[in-house]
Amino acid sequence: MIGGELNDFRQRLRIEQPGQALYSLIERLYPICRSITGDGVRKTLSILSEHVPLEVHEVPSGTAVLDWTVPKEWNIRDAYVKDASGRRVIDFKQHNLHVVGYSVPVKARMSLSELRPRLYSLPKHPDWIPYRNSFYKEDWGFCLTHRALEKLEEGEYEVCIDSTLENGSLSYGELVLPGREQGEILISCHVCHPSLCNDNLSGNAVAIFLARYLAALPRRHTFRFLFLPVTIGAITWLALNEANLGRIRHGLVLTLLGDAGRVTYKKSRRGDSAVDRAAAYVLESSGDPHAIEEFFPYGYDERQFCSPGFDLPVGCLMRTPHGRFPEYHNSGDNLELVKSESLEDSLGKCLAILDVLEKDELLINLSPKGEPQLGRRGIFRSLAERNEQGLEMALLWVLNQCDGSRSLVEVAQRSGLPFAKIHDAAEVLKKHDLLGAAPQAQKSRGKQA
Amino acid sequence: MIGGELNDFRQRLRIEQPGQALYSLIERLYPICRSITGDGVRKTLSILSEHVPLEVHEVPSGTAVLDWTVPKEWNIRDAYVKDASGRRVIDFKQHNLHVVGYSVPVKARMSLSELRPRLYSLPKHPDWIPYRNSFYKEDWGFCLTHRALEKLEEGEYEVCIDSTLENGSLSYGELVLPGREQGEILISCHVCHPSLCNDNLSGNAVAIFLARYLAALPRRHTFRFLFLPVTIGAITWLALNEANLGRIRHGLVLTLLGDAGRVTYKKSRRGDSAVDRAAAYVLESSGDPHAIEEFFPYGYDERQFCSPGFDLPVGCLMRTPHGRFPEYHNSGDNLELVKSESLEDSLGKCLAILDVLEKDELLINLSPKGEPQLGRRGIFRSLAERNEQGLEMALLWVLNQCDGSRSLVEVAQRSGLPFAKIHDAAEVLKKHDLLGAAPQAQKSRGKQA
Amino acid sequence: MIGGELNDFRQRLRIEQPGQALYSLIERLYPICRSITGDGVRKTLSILSEHVPLEVHEVPSGTAVLDWTVPKEWNIRDAYVKDASGRRVIDFKQHNLHVVGYSVPVKARMSLSELRPRLYSLPKHPDWIPYRNSFYKEDWGFCLTHRALEKLEEGEYEVCIDSTLENGSLSYGELVLPGREQGEILISCHVCHPSLCNDNLSGNAVAIFLARYLAALPRRHTFRFLFLPVTIGAITWLALNEANLGRIRHGLVLTLLGDAGRVTYKKSRRGDSAVDRAAAYVLESSGDPHAIEEFFPYGYDERQFCSPGFDLPVGCLMRTPHGRFPEYHNSGDNLELVKSESLEDSLGKCLAILDVLEKDELLINLSPKGEPQLGRRGIFRSLAERNEQGLEMALLWVLNQCDGSRSLVEVAQRSGLPFAKIHDAAEVLKKHDLLGAAPQAQKSRGKQA
Repeated sequence: MIGGELNDFRQRLRIEQPGQALYSLIERLYPICRSITGDGVRKTLSILSEHVPLEVHEVPSGTAVLDWTVPKEWNIRDAYVKDASGRRVIDFKQHNLHVVGYSVPVKARMSLSELRPRLYSLPKHPDWIPYRNSFYKEDWGFCLTHRALEKLEEGEYEVCIDSTLENGSLSYGELVLPGREQGEILISCHVCHPSLCNDNLSGNAVAIFLARYLAALPRRHTFRFLFLPVTIGAITWLALNEANLGRIRHGLVLTLLGDAGRVTYKKSRRGDSAVDRAAAYVLESSGDPHAIEEFFPYGYDERQFCSPGFDLPVGCLMRTPHGRFPEYHNSGDNLELVKSESLEDSLGKCLAILDVLEKDELLINLSPKGEPQLGRRGIFRSLAERNEQGLEMALLWVLNQCDGSRSLVEVAQRSGLPFAKIHDAAEVLKKHDLLGAAPQAQKSRGKQA
Repeated sequence: MIGGELNDFRQRLRIEQPGQALYSLIERLYPICRSITGDGVRKTLSILSEHVPLEVHEVPSGTAVLDWTVPKEWNIRDAYVKDASGRRVIDFKQHNLHVVGYSVPVKARMSLSELRPRLYSLPKHPDWIPYRNSFYKEDWGFCLTHRALEKLEEGEYEVCIDSTLENGSLSYGELVLPGREQGEILISCHVCHPSLCNDNLSGNAVAIFLARYLAALPRRHTFRFLFLPVTIGAITWLALNEANLGRIRHGLVLTLLGDAGRVTYKKSRRGDSAVDRAAAYVLESSGDPHAIEEFFPYGYDERQFCSPGFDLPVGCLMRTPHGRFPEYHNSGDNLELVKSESLEDSLGKCLAILDVLEKDELLINLSPKGEPQLGRRGIFRSLAERNEQGLEMALLWVLNQCDGSRSLVEVAQRSGLPFAKIHDAAEVLKKHDLLGAAPQAQKSRGKQA
Repeated sequence: MIGGELNDFRQRLRIEQPGQALYSLIERLYPICRSITGDGVRKTLSILSEHVPLEVHEVPSGTAVLDWTVPKEWNIRDAYVKDASGRRVIDFKQHNLHVVGYSVPVKARMSLSELRPRLYSLPKHPDWIPYRNSFYKEDWGFCLTHRALEKLEEGEYEVCIDSTLENGSLSYGELVLPGREQGEILISCHVCHPSLCNDNLSGNAVAIFLARYLAALPRRHTFRFLFLPVTIGAITWLALNEANLGRIRHGLVLTLLGDAGRVTYKKSRRGDSAVDRAAAYVLESSGDPHAIEEFFPYGYDERQFCSPGFDLPVGCLMRTPHGRFPEYHNSGDNLELVKSESLEDSLGKCLAILDVLEKDELLINLSPKGEPQLGRRGIFRSLAERNEQGLEMALLWVLNQCDGSRSLVEVAQRSGLPFAKIHDAAEVLKKHDLLGAAPQAQKSRGKQA
């Protein structure tokens, strides 16, 4: 079954090369200067809305959200440092990483020594421009390659940041795809980084195409997609939706899905959520190199979803984790770092994990005393030799193990049989009224439901 | 202690060579054509009854048992396929595996091409006759070596199966050896296979001699031996005895105990039953190669005893598991496959497991505050140096660990001391009123009682 | 932090060479003939009292304590065996191990063959005098080197043991250092061995200097130090203090802390007490060779504290465990066996374990929904790059994990960050009212509180 989802994706969406489609979306979004508020996010959400009907929320500056306050809105038109000859030695129009995010407006002349404390570079990677912000303290600055920094000569410079930092709103996108059940699967990604590709246009692209695909399918769970400014966006959404968090059964934060590294799944804080099992199952049975990591409280918005007061069953799917590749948070995270093959592989694994979550159930054997007589129901093959690796074995495993304490993924793991076989067996047994929903599934599973 | 049981067996039953005695019983039972019903089972139970007074139950065809119905009774006198010259090219009288079990009566002439779909052989093992049945769908067929199949020439054949499939009854044997306690140890084996030795005349032989030995001993537990047709026999017995299943504290299914492979213990579904611990303890401390496997829901009647609606603490003791030796379910499973040394070794290990279960107890230290003064009771040696590997160490372990949460086997495992030493220490401490039965043993142990 | 405690010790107590100070105390105590009662213990307690104000308890012979009775008091002035020429061939004044502890008075003449059953030597270690007692059975005897035993010639000997065994009392020392909290940390060691150094003058020396140091510090826990005759002393103390045992939160038995072997921590019976975690944490993060052993019910007074009726969270810190070094319980356990460097290392590790226990707490995040905004509180560095290995990471770990189910040591273990950093982060968060005591810490932690 794993791998099959991607073919189904191709056929339903008539997209022959999913990786290429994701890459093209990234190319289009790359030049936009995003931040945690402002028109860059709005433009990004508008482009994403061409694929699926995102609802764009605007939350006014000053709104109290949990322990935080929605900040002022930041927008920027231009920024530069000119030398004595009037040449732009640092130019926002060349690369939007050149300006420290959330820089207040500046118009001044100053010597290099006055300017220098506000210039950020990466001595170890002298050709890359670092990515810096000052979201919650009013400040300003410029980022540049270390090589460019070293070339700056003493003398007077003209400094201009043509930005605004004013009351406005924080924007985020949301899409709900209702399912047969009210229980939700949450897919969240951040949309606040300027010209960086892996972090996180890769996540945005995978999420949007997942949404397009799921919109074309019958769904068991309700799917909720969030496109949020990191941290403050998640905090805001959690504050506004706290009453409904109980609906979230499973969740994935998507980020860093385009580099050439192996896929990494970082578990939810609980460490034994159904999504943890599903992701582990998919990665382990993929045969591909992969890593499964325990939860740690930094990274992306799983930090907020998994804060102890919420403790939602939300994991994080990525390739190389943040901070572990040299291009992290600098201009090296560009269109060359992300690969269409990696994007396609990430999409396929997401699809497989969601497929498992859609099919995983907590069921009980309705004829639990002795084995039911499968032969008279025509389920077992007669006379000819039984194939122990086939459906018969899966039927026996499901009947024996489904007592309301283990979901189908757990039966698959315990039996060593593919989840697809276990699921098929469960469907056959349901048809014959030998298997049914565990009556107290929601209740008895408690936090792990 | 391990090994000692077999010597005690020799002395009490005056059988110098237990393995040889078991083998002789198998030799006598081998020619009989058994099936899940019919006179073959009755004849088998009759021979077994020469050793111990088996109660033979007859359950009428058509009786509803759990999800099943007791089938018609099958008997067979003769079956053959004759070629044009009148020669029996397949002859039931040569080997009872030649006829598909539960074949309906047939008397016909047909071409080879008409006959061929009803002929079963093993191309990979061309000299062995396979074992096939059609218990629950009326059908017929023949089994033969692949070499014989290939020699059949085109032409007309006379086909005869002189069988009856009529209302009658299902037969099974039962023996109860009452103990000081009502709680039971169940020993179950199947008696429905025709001329196959390891599967399961080996199990029958071990079970009968266990019963003979236990009958000659004072017993703590009540022992219940079952000689059942596989699956339907267990289903039938469970249906008829459902009200008393709560008495079963431990159980073992005995099968495949005669081949030269290492001993394998397959755990009960619970995985942490007392019998699982006892068997693991005996095998691990035997020093012999062995395997301990997690429960899986196929194999023998542990499937039924461990179905989720019963979930009895019943494991399965065997040597090479079913399907993992080439002679499985074909004529290669004959008198050469089973070895008297293997039978004797299997018997010895059964005896050791049952000895542990008989002696394992949930006890509590009655003087639990500080160590009791063993010296004034004359239990500790005085002056001379204490031997830490001896009884003193076992006394201290038992006193420290027996708080009602761990049985003696668990104390043995935790201490690394032999179970025999731990048991001896417990007996000494009981005599001095320092150790007693855990008051809520039954209740607090719950399912694992 | 680990290592820092020893420097603080040096400064506060103005002791430049702690190991040398401990060694000197051992030298002074070495010649005294101690036993489980008598003036040797009193003289030892009197010397220890020069360091800290020990309260010396005297419990009369005949007092019923748990399952035991306080024995008669034993004192000895002289003991010898003289040969026909009047030469002392065995002389208590040469070494107090020469007489079997608790020997009753004797004045007799006898042949070598009459005397021989009462002479104990170590044939495998012919130059060492063994250590023997007969505390609970009235008896007498002598110990000598095997070489000396072999030199004894046939003939008549004069035997004298000038001892008294009369009603008196059992003496033990106790010191309580009150803390801000009533909950106690118990430090126990035995003071009943005659001229043996590692067993247990090393433990006495470490304990006394720990007490001196802790007396000079502000303390969270109340510290209780016990200097007990082994077994009967612990039994007596437990009997007299049973009503207050609930105050003991953590405990350590100190013994065998002077030999050159690696440090060994033997867990409490529970195996997962806070002291078990603290000791494991300190040893594992020390970088030094060490061993952590599961509880076993022999050794020293942890046997009594961890008897099932008390089951106190008391572990045992030592270097080479009893019985695993050749000098154990013989005259080889002398001033050469113990090393000042080993004593100093043992002291340092004790200090570190106690420091962790003093700082370990069960806390809860008071702003658990989403991350609190650390930036506006000035806790996070702004603009400049966050150092993920620094305080910020510790802050995030503490906030995420402190939900009342894990103490700070457990957060350190889970995060892989040093305990000191986790503790620092917790202190910062407490100051900002983001972290507080878990309201039901005592109750919810149950036995492990």
